[in-house]
Amino acid sequence: MPAPAPPADGGYGVAVERTEGPIILVSNRGPLSFSLSADGALQSRRGGGGLVSALGPAVAGTGATWIAGALSEADRRAAAAGVVEADGFRLRPLVVDADAYRAYYDVISSGALWFVHHRLYDTPRRPRIDRHWRHAWDRYRQVNAAFARSVIEEAADQAIVLVQDYHLSLVGAELAAKRPDLTTVHFHHTPFGGPDDLRILPEEVTVELLEGLTASSACGFQAPRWAAAFESCCVEVLGRTCPTFVSPAAVEVSEIAGVAASPACAAALVGLEQQVGDRRLIVRVDRIELSKNLLRGFHAFDELLLTRPEWRERVVFAACVYPSREGLAEYLAYRQETEGLIQRINQTWATPGWTPILYDATDDFPRSVAALRRYDALLVNPVRDGLNLVAKEGPLVNERDGVLLLSRESGAWAELAAGAVGLNPFDVGATAEALHEALTMSDGDRKARASEVRRRAAARTPADWLADQLAAAARVRSA
Amino acid sequence: MPAPAPPADGGYGVAVERTEGPIILVSNRGPLSFSLSADGALQSRRGGGGLVSALGPAVAGTGATWIAGALSEADRRAAAAGVVEADGFRLRPLVVDADAYRAYYDVISSGALWFVHHRLYDTPRRPRIDRHWRHAWDRYRQVNAAFARSVIEEAADQAIVLVQDYHLSLVGAELAAKRPDLTTVHFHHTPFGGPDDLRILPEEVTVELLEGLTASSACGFQAPRWAAAFESCCVEVLGRTCPTFVSPAAVEVSEIAGVAASPACAAALVGLEQQVGDRRLIVRVDRIELSKNLLRGFHAFDELLLTRPEWRERVVFAACVYPSREGLAEYLAYRQETEGLIQRINQTWATPGWTPILYDATDDFPRSVAALRRYDALLVNPVRDGLNLVAKEGPLVNERDGVLLLSRESGAWAELAAGAVGLNPFDVGATAEALHEALTMSDGDRKARASEVRRRAAARTPADWLADQLAAAARVRSA
Repeated sequence: MPAPAPPADGGYGVAVERTEGPIILVSNRGPLSFSLSADGALQSRRGGGGLVSALGPAVAGTGATWIAGALSEADRRAAAAGVVEADGFRLRPLVVDADAYRAYYDVISSGALWFVHHRLYDTPRRPRIDRHWRHAWDRYRQVNAAFARSVIEEAADQAIVLVQDYHLSLVGAELAAKRPDLTTVHFHHTPFGGPDDLRILPEEVTVELLEGLTASSACGFQAPRWAAAFESCCVEVLGRTCPTFVSPAAVEVSEIAGVAASPACAAALVGLEQQVGDRRLIVRVDRIELSKNLLRGFHAFDELLLTRPEWRERVVFAACVYPSREGLAEYLAYRQETEGLIQRINQTWATPGWTPILYDATDDFPRSVAALRRYDALLVNPVRDGLNLVAKEGPLVNERDGVLLLSRESGAWAELAAGAVGLNPFDVGATAEALHEALTMSDGDRKARASEVRRRAAARTPADWLADQLAAAARVRSA
Repeated sequence: MPAPAPPADGGYGVAVERTEGPIILVSNRGPLSFSLSADGALQSRRGGGGLVSALGPAVAGTGATWIAGALSEADRRAAAAGVVEADGFRLRPLVVDADAYRAYYDVISSGALWFVHHRLYDTPRRPRIDRHWRHAWDRYRQVNAAFARSVIEEAADQAIVLVQDYHLSLVGAELAAKRPDLTTVHFHHTPFGGPDDLRILPEEVTVELLEGLTASSACGFQAPRWAAAFESCCVEVLGRTCPTFVSPAAVEVSEIAGVAASPACAAALVGLEQQVGDRRLIVRVDRIELSKNLLRGFHAFDELLLTRPEWRERVVFAACVYPSREGLAEYLAYRQETEGLIQRINQTWATPGWTPILYDATDDFPRSVAALRRYDALLVNPVRDGLNLVAKEGPLVNERDGVLLLSRESGAWAELAAGAVGLNPFDVGATAEALHEALTMSDGDRKARASEVRRRAAARTPADWLADQLAAAARVRSA
């Protein structure tokens, strides 16, 4: 396929229109995950995770080729069947050696890069970079090279390649070396660590990571802070940077509205109403994830009940959470600690007929959306977060002018600050006060804030996000 | 006393000569700690800690007034007796309410500011800023105000006030408001956290801290990195900064040479030689402190014995450490974890006649100096450290051209990099390799490195350090 002409003005508007060009999307997790039916037939359903929520709707209908890891046995069977035509794009599952994948995913991606970019390390103890770690780093390089090979096989001459996230930091360098005709854009969905954070990694690893990312034509981020941190790291370590751009991911409003209008969601809402009654409702919807700050959220609720006794029996905290990365000891421990804390708080405060915290750890999206429709206060208090899509999804489906309590350390803060109540996620006392403020806010204030947040959350679409990636590519081509 | 005229050239050289002017030094811990003899009489001895080691020799003979907290019952008795004339300076112990002191020292100074500046927090869990924390913060302000009042009482018109360290961050603001005739210089002995680190604290606390520090005429740091981090924080939070200067603390060579030549040290060396024999010796001398990175040091030694079997039975690791801050749960846990690890390593590798790790947790300075005289490799691997005076003391007394292995995250790295072997403190594998490199280095290389480090460690004196503070004050006065 011939390369599309660069947009005349190099701007965002024009670029949106050229999505019919040859586009390759690369990500660790794909838009479809496969399973085997009872009779052994392959079935596909939409994959999970924030990245897929943001990208899936944008890519539908573009005819792009999406290369993604084949994670399960069924995924691998689908991969053996070759390219899957789906919903206006082509999926090419990539089979990776299972041991190499574990090292690449658990040890390096989830266990190191995620921790560095989110500043989660207990530095006196972790990380402990030893020979096992270095072995895993070699596997990370190997898996990145496999993704790059797959791109090289699939990519038409002059194609645009959109590489997604921290799992694939080295793909850009492979492509630059072997396929200089391609235009590669790397988008980082997580935060980016500052220079002091990256110094935790072995220097040669940091150099390789940053060289891998800067080998792309441009690097995109969810918020200005993360782009600035990336640039500081590049200047400090490499003495140079590459073009960057900021493009926050967005919610496909029609999609989440469809879930909100579904019978499953209606049934879940009835169930929730029965438990909550006419009490106020605080909601959180999160993966069980160290960066999400579940512990301090529940401590803040505990402090609210202690310091503001008028809320006892009058408020319920619904935690719609779901397990994540349970192959890592840190995540298992965090889940246990969280559940222990919830139990203690419920034992302390519960009365006949009132359970302060409703804890649901089943991954049930309609149920989560039901809680989002009903909340009076939505608690989004990560210690650090690339964006946090729930902070946009919640306000878009909420039906009570509920208040968004949003961590200043989330990328979404840059977009939603005007309507949200800001939180320092480390400050349990101030979070408790913010909950009280949200629950006692006048109707006028609630309405004004909720409408401001809704307006801002709806201001961008997944298509805008994709257009920004393509515009970044186009700017480089026309330069 | 009239104010001394500012030095004609505003430079360092002239300022050294004006130490007879009215100088007030303020620090949490004083240069003398008192005890009661069997018959109830007050006895004094030199206080502990890096700050006192650096300042004590510099201040002797200047006639300065040193205001410091009265920490023990005997200190408080000495305080009741008023000002103590000592070794060419006047000591004024300040009695602080014991409960307020605990909150100011344990909760805020050691438990929060130390953790923020050294980046030690396990962020998913700590800190948990709640109502107890805010109460402690009020006590921190109260104790800082008490120190400031004491300065105000003691300070002659136009005196120069040298405020020491993170415990007393708010003293400068109090003095600026109430005694604008004084020239205050604040010196920060620890590292300084970057903007992302300070965001952990409540915003109003960060503002108050930075306003307290910038109210001084100038702020001094041990290394350029910490000064740059401080300036970044000030610009981000306050939109302005204050003059800064860099002045690494130094060792009084005659003093440590005196200890090295003492009978106590000779006896300790004999004892050590008996245990080590003709084996190579790795040494570390540290407080048992989360920032010192004891755990990874021992893990690296374990990895050395595993991956380089030729070192089994041929090397001994002497850890001369001493307990610290055992009132904080984090420190008790860290000590237990360290001792458990040592036990495991010794159980794994020991043979009849060879104990791999000699662990001594008694605070015995002559014994530590004996180990410093004897080391073949000195391991100084903090995860982050304002300076690390041991990295200078060791080379100055070592008698075997031992190799200094020094963390790049220590302030001393800026001065000693040319002669030391650099470490990434998180990298256990590379640390093990650096130990091997040090133990196999040619005599010529060892000699060249050791002499370079010695030269650099001896290049500055405590008097230079004091002169820098005074010069910073003089520059402001003459501006």
